[in-house]
Amino acid sequence: MKTRLIELAHGSGGKATDDLVTEVFFRAFNNPALNRKNDQALLDLPPGRIVMACDSHVITPLFFPGGDIGTLSVTGTINDVAMAGAVPVALSAAFILEEGFPVDDLERIAASMAREAREAGVPIVTGDTKVVEKGSGDGVFISTTGIGVVPEGLVLSGDRCRPGDRLLVSGTIGDHGMALLAFREGMSFDPPLLSDCQSLHQLVGRMVEGVPSIRCLRDPTRGGVGAALNEWAAQSGVGIRIREESLPIRETVFSACELLGLDPLYMANEGKLLAVCPPEDAERLLEIMKSHPQGQNAAIIGEIVEDRGHFVEVETLMGGTRLLHWIHGDQLPRIC
Amino acid sequence: MKTRLIELAHGSGGKATDDLVTEVFFRAFNNPALNRKNDQALLDLPPGRIVMACDSHVITPLFFPGGDIGTLSVTGTINDVAMAGAVPVALSAAFILEEGFPVDDLERIAASMAREAREAGVPIVTGDTKVVEKGSGDGVFISTTGIGVVPEGLVLSGDRCRPGDRLLVSGTIGDHGMALLAFREGMSFDPPLLSDCQSLHQLVGRMVEGVPSIRCLRDPTRGGVGAALNEWAAQSGVGIRIREESLPIRETVFSACELLGLDPLYMANEGKLLAVCPPEDAERLLEIMKSHPQGQNAAIIGEIVEDRGHFVEVETLMGGTRLLHWIHGDQLPRIC
Repeated sequence: MKTRLIELAHGSGGKATDDLVTEVFFRAFNNPALNRKNDQALLDLPPGRIVMACDSHVITPLFFPGGDIGTLSVTGTINDVAMAGAVPVALSAAFILEEGFPVDDLERIAASMAREAREAGVPIVTGDTKVVEKGSGDGVFISTTGIGVVPEGLVLSGDRCRPGDRLLVSGTIGDHGMALLAFREGMSFDPPLLSDCQSLHQLVGRMVEGVPSIRCLRDPTRGGVGAALNEWAAQSGVGIRIREESLPIRETVFSACELLGLDPLYMANEGKLLAVCPPEDAERLLEIMKSHPQGQNAAIIGEIVEDRGHFVEVETLMGGTRLLHWIHGDQLPRIC
Repeated sequence: MKTRLIELAHGSGGKATDDLVTEVFFRAFNNPALNRKNDQALLDLPPGRIVMACDSHVITPLFFPGGDIGTLSVTGTINDVAMAGAVPVALSAAFILEEGFPVDDLERIAASMAREAREAGVPIVTGDTKVVEKGSGDGVFISTTGIGVVPEGLVLSGDRCRPGDRLLVSGTIGDHGMALLAFREGMSFDPPLLSDCQSLHQLVGRMVEGVPSIRCLRDPTRGGVGAALNEWAAQSGVGIRIREESLPIRETVFSACELLGLDPLYMANEGKLLAVCPPEDAERLLEIMKSHPQGQNAAIIGEIVEDRGHFVEVETLMGGTRLLHWIHGDQLPRIC
């Protein structure tokens, strides 16, 4: 059977675009708002304040253990919306395709997006498809934007950390980054290492319902826990202190990091979150997180401190202290 | 002076990303929702139904007569939102940068986006920046998503055309497509031909306020008037008949099309709209459009007819009739 390939005509806005979009995206994403085939989607939203978040996805390779660029483009943006404590309600998806990309692969990616969107209960309501010449892109890039509704009275923001607050993480760190690195380099582990990419809005729903005093949430993707904590420290004008011994890390990820001289605190995650809450609510928040399948390995990993330098410090396993710098670049390009 | 270039580290999510985003995007787009530096923006919206629209922009060259990819990424998505009769309220912008792209060019593009967003009164409230290796992208791609609020009771949709309805266009057609083509091919005109890229939401606001019976609006971008009308004919299950003699076309665009054997009905527009309304309201709608600077050259160009084949037909200047097919590809790739 002949392999169908993306042609420049598929990005023309003419019949070829309509055929591709109908065959691949409408079939996969199938929902009332999208199906009207207008250039925009009309949404009925519950009352509340609206949040908006967006992400471009340029991950390579497109298919990896535990997911693909399609899964990631849905979970990544759902998580950005959810980190405001919001209930995600709709996604847009814009595709930049490279001429010559196999249509079968695009269908596989669209199927992953559709599955993830359906399971998360967040429809992809509008989209766009462009095509660039061979050599001007790299297979497929997907930009998604999500909107969500924040429950009345809830305000989560990275500038709300106060000295004394506790820091929690929802599970093992570094899984996505190490799974990608291992897959790219042809390393194999037993048990195999999978990306943790997953939508976290249901876990977040439980957390904000049970502990509305949560200061802020963030999913430590690119740049890992290290980047997320440095951002919060700068936004809130505080220091952060974490304990290495309390960090949940898979044995395989820990060993591979040791072997390769990498720091799991800078490895990307795609299905974990960091949370800050007042000290008196930390144990209750931990309990709520642990009672959810996505938070089984949750832990209190540190606290917010006064620090004019806004430094993030790690108490090491050896009993010392090291600075968790805001590193300039990344350990691994195109990780999401 | 040394030219600053985009490096892979700028897409790492680490300090380099933060520096670039702060220096280029925060400085240019500066607004309260964005400035909180969270991974998502919190918006206070007026009550009403929400619309969501998105567009990826891969235009080449990045800078062209009458605009650049930055202008276009703002106006294009504002227009998609506005075509639902909505008041656009916020934009997200996701950037995919190619390693080696000059930071000065990125600043110029961000300045265009900021200017257009400010003039339109629609802030860019959240964003994302990724970097791909040299040769895996093409300078910069920008995906924007817009949300807007639809006034109570208004429903515009491409499936609402009825036989007898009139078809209007807001101004000269083919300007964007021909300006790009001429610029790419090194052709020059006197007077020079500029892209028509502009935000149309204020014109739309006047139109839907004055004639709330409008059936639908669409901006005929890629694929031009030809693609837009064929989409409506298919969505509404009707035929459409237009008169060539009533089409507003610039003399230069008309001559260049003649010379090159191109059809202005398939040329892209980035600052024009098509409107369908009941016959009794057409003259009033035309008057409202003509009284706005963006609608000075507006015209009634045809009507909706019964047609089981859902064909779009053109009464030619010569008195004959030709089918305006839904063409497969485009006359010009990467036009937006």
